[in-house]
Amino acid sequence: MKITAPELNPPQHDHHSNPKPLGGEGLRGQSAGTTALCTVGKSGTGLTYRGYDISDLAYHAEFEEVAYLLLKGKLPTQAELSAYKDKLVSFRGLPLALKMMLEQIPADAHPMDVMRTACSMLGNLEQEQGFSEEYDKADRLLALFPAIICYWYRYSHHGVRIETYCEEDTIGGYFLHMLTGSPPCELHKQVMHCSLILYAEHEFNASTFAARVCASTLSDIYSCVCAAIGTLRGPLHGGANEAAMEMIEQWQTPDEAEAGILKMLADKEKIMGFGHAVYRESDPRNALIKNWSAKLAEQADDPMLYAISERVEAVMKREKNLFCNADFFHASAYHFMGIPTKLFTPIFVMSRLTGWAAHVFEQREHNRIIRPSADYIGPEHQEWLPIDER
Amino acid sequence: MKITAPELNPPQHDHHSNPKPLGGEGLRGQSAGTTALCTVGKSGTGLTYRGYDISDLAYHAEFEEVAYLLLKGKLPTQAELSAYKDKLVSFRGLPLALKMMLEQIPADAHPMDVMRTACSMLGNLEQEQGFSEEYDKADRLLALFPAIICYWYRYSHHGVRIETYCEEDTIGGYFLHMLTGSPPCELHKQVMHCSLILYAEHEFNASTFAARVCASTLSDIYSCVCAAIGTLRGPLHGGANEAAMEMIEQWQTPDEAEAGILKMLADKEKIMGFGHAVYRESDPRNALIKNWSAKLAEQADDPMLYAISERVEAVMKREKNLFCNADFFHASAYHFMGIPTKLFTPIFVMSRLTGWAAHVFEQREHNRIIRPSADYIGPEHQEWLPIDER
Repeated sequence: MKITAPELNPPQHDHHSNPKPLGGEGLRGQSAGTTALCTVGKSGTGLTYRGYDISDLAYHAEFEEVAYLLLKGKLPTQAELSAYKDKLVSFRGLPLALKMMLEQIPADAHPMDVMRTACSMLGNLEQEQGFSEEYDKADRLLALFPAIICYWYRYSHHGVRIETYCEEDTIGGYFLHMLTGSPPCELHKQVMHCSLILYAEHEFNASTFAARVCASTLSDIYSCVCAAIGTLRGPLHGGANEAAMEMIEQWQTPDEAEAGILKMLADKEKIMGFGHAVYRESDPRNALIKNWSAKLAEQADDPMLYAISERVEAVMKREKNLFCNADFFHASAYHFMGIPTKLFTPIFVMSRLTGWAAHVFEQREHNRIIRPSADYIGPEHQEWLPIDER
Repeated sequence: MKITAPELNPPQHDHHSNPKPLGGEGLRGQSAGTTALCTVGKSGTGLTYRGYDISDLAYHAEFEEVAYLLLKGKLPTQAELSAYKDKLVSFRGLPLALKMMLEQIPADAHPMDVMRTACSMLGNLEQEQGFSEEYDKADRLLALFPAIICYWYRYSHHGVRIETYCEEDTIGGYFLHMLTGSPPCELHKQVMHCSLILYAEHEFNASTFAARVCASTLSDIYSCVCAAIGTLRGPLHGGANEAAMEMIEQWQTPDEAEAGILKMLADKEKIMGFGHAVYRESDPRNALIKNWSAKLAEQADDPMLYAISERVEAVMKREKNLFCNADFFHASAYHFMGIPTKLFTPIFVMSRLTGWAAHVFEQREHNRIIRPSADYIGPEHQEWLPIDER
């Protein structure tokens, strides 16, 4: 059976096997630089942002506090946090040229292509003139991504031109408000805080590394974020929670899910949302989002989805000793909040932008262009032949 | 003095120093995978594409032959080349939604941002549905990039909506035709062949590596090319020929240029277009483009620019024993053909797209996600503090 983890695509192995030897293809295990932002799996399970445990952050913080921590280097005071949230609210105006562009994108476009293109377009309209602007540009993207995806989604799918200015003072609440047209409840805002915190940063994952390669030529921040969005778009990186949703929503009962999983295992099909290439024992993010998914289930119209998810978790543990990663219970949590499955990965962008931008700042601080070598396996010297002799 | 090479930003050293030790920051000297596409500096000066020497290709081939070689793996027969060129001509229609987007981008935008955004937009309009479409998507971008940059340039700078369908059967000729509104002469078409061939491919340079990182999550080709364009945009990678042009056009005579260079050297200013981080003796591309620049100078209105360029070359050799890289004589060559300086790097994109796409195909063939590790240099465990205790 092949397990696809949220950010890495590990080779076939089970939970008890030893870690792979270092080196080889994909730069696995090779250091490509230094970072002060994050540790992943240091003690087998842990995840820290600037030294803070992910559980502390997810239990206690708002997402904006964590964004501040990642981007500015420390947790904010109450005054700093309030000022920061006010700034983000003030940055929500969508430029007319960007709206016109979004209206040109059809409903069947890939939402990650919409995110990447809007970010790129903003680079034309509000160029980063120098690195002293990097904080403002990152904050602007952070403020604008919910409006971007919702403007396109509502226009292309429902023919509605939404007003993107809104007083919702959190990014998660703002996204839900733009998406549905009405203010979200407190529970939903809290879930969004937790979700955005869990996805904010994960060391040198592929999208972050792409952003750093781009930053290493001293390119602008929009280019770096476009590179990251495009990299996250790949099915081996983002999208595991969407795939998990598509899987669990095909079943009507826990028993049906169990039979379905057993058949998938027998057929050696991919089961999304389980296992991880770095974490060995468990994914520290799972318990955090699962807790919220359970709370959402209590008030949901769909009484079965959470029970189905729990059964899938139990069967995977029993059959393969595999644990849920961050993505699995995100599927039901997002679904309970009424978020269309195709918008799951754009939420990942809204969150991970903070990690990407912090890595870009860090790369710029101590830059050397990232330019590896390659092992040549092509033909030796070829004699030129005129075209009529080929 | 700090020398900035066209694709790498080597540390301060002169031509006689030994190569840097392998490893360290920026993955310098570390293999990040295998390739059959290119060797750079294998014998100290060489450059080969799929085993063919760059001199053979630049002397004998059309750019479309080299594009075919890189993308399809072999040099075409006459029938294959004709069919390929016909296909590229047939791919020149610019979608209305893309035109409308280009018309929203102001004249003071960075032309590389325009290229990146148009590529990204096309990903929405003509999605790559599976990897079996990769050749067609690459060819479509190859056919369309000249139209994209010229449509935006002529509209934003001159208020003209150009017709992008045109019978010019070469990519270089098509670009010049779109730019000026009239068919280019044979000499100019030949120079464009040479230039596009020289810039087509260069192993794991930063932009190509960014494209491969993106491809390694199995993302779509537009995402990969956007990542590459954004990475090439950085001043440590693309743009050296633009910088060389800005330098040489400030001088009126060779003597003035010599005095200017000596002053810049004394002031330890960057001199663009000289030296290279991989090549030690010379850049094999320099003689090839210099030859064309000399020919263009014979018919040019500006009799001094070539003489100034030659003097700068001589002074840099005499004073620093540094050689011209591919970029230096590109500046005068492009200028003689009437190309605005700000469009030099977009030409690099039109050419290097072939290398990027070939590397994306190669990455997909034998993929493992590119996900290195990092050395953590941040704080140890931090205790969570409630916001009013910070």
